[in-house]
Amino acid sequence: MSTGALEDLSRLCVHTITTKPWDIVTAAKNYAAAGVKGITVWRDTLEGRDIKQTGNMLREEGLNIVSLCRGGFFPAADKSKRKIAIDDNRKAIEEAAALGTPLIVLVCGADPTQSLDDSRQQIQDGIAAVLDEASAAGVKLAIEPLHPMYADTRSAINTLAQANDMAEALNSPWVGVAVDVYHLWWDPSLEQEIKRCGQHHNLLAFHVCDWNVPTTDMLLDRGLMGEGCIPIRKIRSWVEATGFNGFNEVEIFSTRFWKEDQSAFLQKIIKAYREHV
Amino acid sequence: MSTGALEDLSRLCVHTITTKPWDIVTAAKNYAAAGVKGITVWRDTLEGRDIKQTGNMLREEGLNIVSLCRGGFFPAADKSKRKIAIDDNRKAIEEAAALGTPLIVLVCGADPTQSLDDSRQQIQDGIAAVLDEASAAGVKLAIEPLHPMYADTRSAINTLAQANDMAEALNSPWVGVAVDVYHLWWDPSLEQEIKRCGQHHNLLAFHVCDWNVPTTDMLLDRGLMGEGCIPIRKIRSWVEATGFNGFNEVEIFSTRFWKEDQSAFLQKIIKAYREHV
Repeated sequence: MSTGALEDLSRLCVHTITTKPWDIVTAAKNYAAAGVKGITVWRDTLEGRDIKQTGNMLREEGLNIVSLCRGGFFPAADKSKRKIAIDDNRKAIEEAAALGTPLIVLVCGADPTQSLDDSRQQIQDGIAAVLDEASAAGVKLAIEPLHPMYADTRSAINTLAQANDMAEALNSPWVGVAVDVYHLWWDPSLEQEIKRCGQHHNLLAFHVCDWNVPTTDMLLDRGLMGEGCIPIRKIRSWVEATGFNGFNEVEIFSTRFWKEDQSAFLQKIIKAYREHV
Repeated sequence: MSTGALEDLSRLCVHTITTKPWDIVTAAKNYAAAGVKGITVWRDTLEGRDIKQTGNMLREEGLNIVSLCRGGFFPAADKSKRKIAIDDNRKAIEEAAALGTPLIVLVCGADPTQSLDDSRQQIQDGIAAVLDEASAAGVKLAIEPLHPMYADTRSAINTLAQANDMAEALNSPWVGVAVDVYHLWWDPSLEQEIKRCGQHHNLLAFHVCDWNVPTTDMLLDRGLMGEGCIPIRKIRSWVEATGFNGFNEVEIFSTRFWKEDQSAFLQKIIKAYREHV
């Protein structure tokens, strides 16, 4: 593989959750000033804000609004809860349209009181239920497989093969998959499954961070690229071999980094992006 | 599936690590008194002991010595460390023979400073290097796939498909696989892969515990059967459909349970075994 270092920041996107202490205005100004070109907006940052104006503000800062995080969480043994989840996904589609982003990332969900098979069926049914709204709004939905350690409550979709299966079964131009190295790096079929989603034009997003050795918290101890053991550049080479030329999105949940000065952290992200993505 | 509750304890095995505060003599006496019929011996319990005499002691208590835990940890970027690992596996085979158990469970290992592909190759090479000794000693080796959250340092073999691939590639009557519900419950291909290892006569061991919701520690927060979200009985039905009629081995690492009175904990294990395995 001849994939080299990224020479500029034109494809660098940062998730607002990565710099969680910043509100969205502060994040936008600091990202733009540092040369970051893309932003993925987490929904919590939109609470109490005019979403359309927020989208305009981001664009005025020169930022590409790569996606809205997150929809999903479809499964529930209780039918009324599944209805609430579907309504919330419709709301997310409206928010994405108002914000002016073409993509929502789905953390699909799981209910540990029922079988994974049931959760998987409810995910597929839930996505199918909102496809008309997605199409009408011009917003795509990316099924993001999550690491198997989240199969109890966060996602019953735990490999890219499963996400590909579901995207192909739904067979809609409004549904694809998101590849996050944190969730998928261990999978021996990863290269093959990335090729597969490329062939089906289903590869909609690429997320990076690193796996710390050791990892001290199952949710909030993600590493900065280069700190851990994920072969990020190799995986990027597989992603780009499909023709993908979208953003490389930095998504780090880390109580350690959130305690630091966020401007200094953003500079570390940029350095790590050049050296390790 | 019509797999029902286990009506007696004739196939109940407990791993010594499950009741870690007990030395092996205490464990053996208490297991036997409670009606447990099998024991899997962790190597730490043999330190400073005459292994042959220990094996005799266990048999005198009426216990079946199901396996020795654990060999493996083959991968290392440093060749001299790989040599040390192979020597340690030879030692484990000698210990198993002295103890009088027909099986060693392999936690295969991984080195985060090299690729998973390299670690996987070194695992296969390491097992191949000790097959003559295993055969001479009459001791089988079970490749245990570990949960993907351990892919950094504990095992580069993270699905039963990978373990099956490797066992079939090694193609020896002295190599098979171990199925542990904790590591594999999330895998959508689990039923099919259990069927496959049955067809190849490679299913050598079956380990049970549960996945706590939430899980608070990546290593030492395993649940007692029934506490969590693993469909243990369903997985046992798949295992038994292959013709497997070996022990159901209870392997729980839990700082919470290790703090309890171990006799009371053993009674909880027996109750959970009847109700949830």
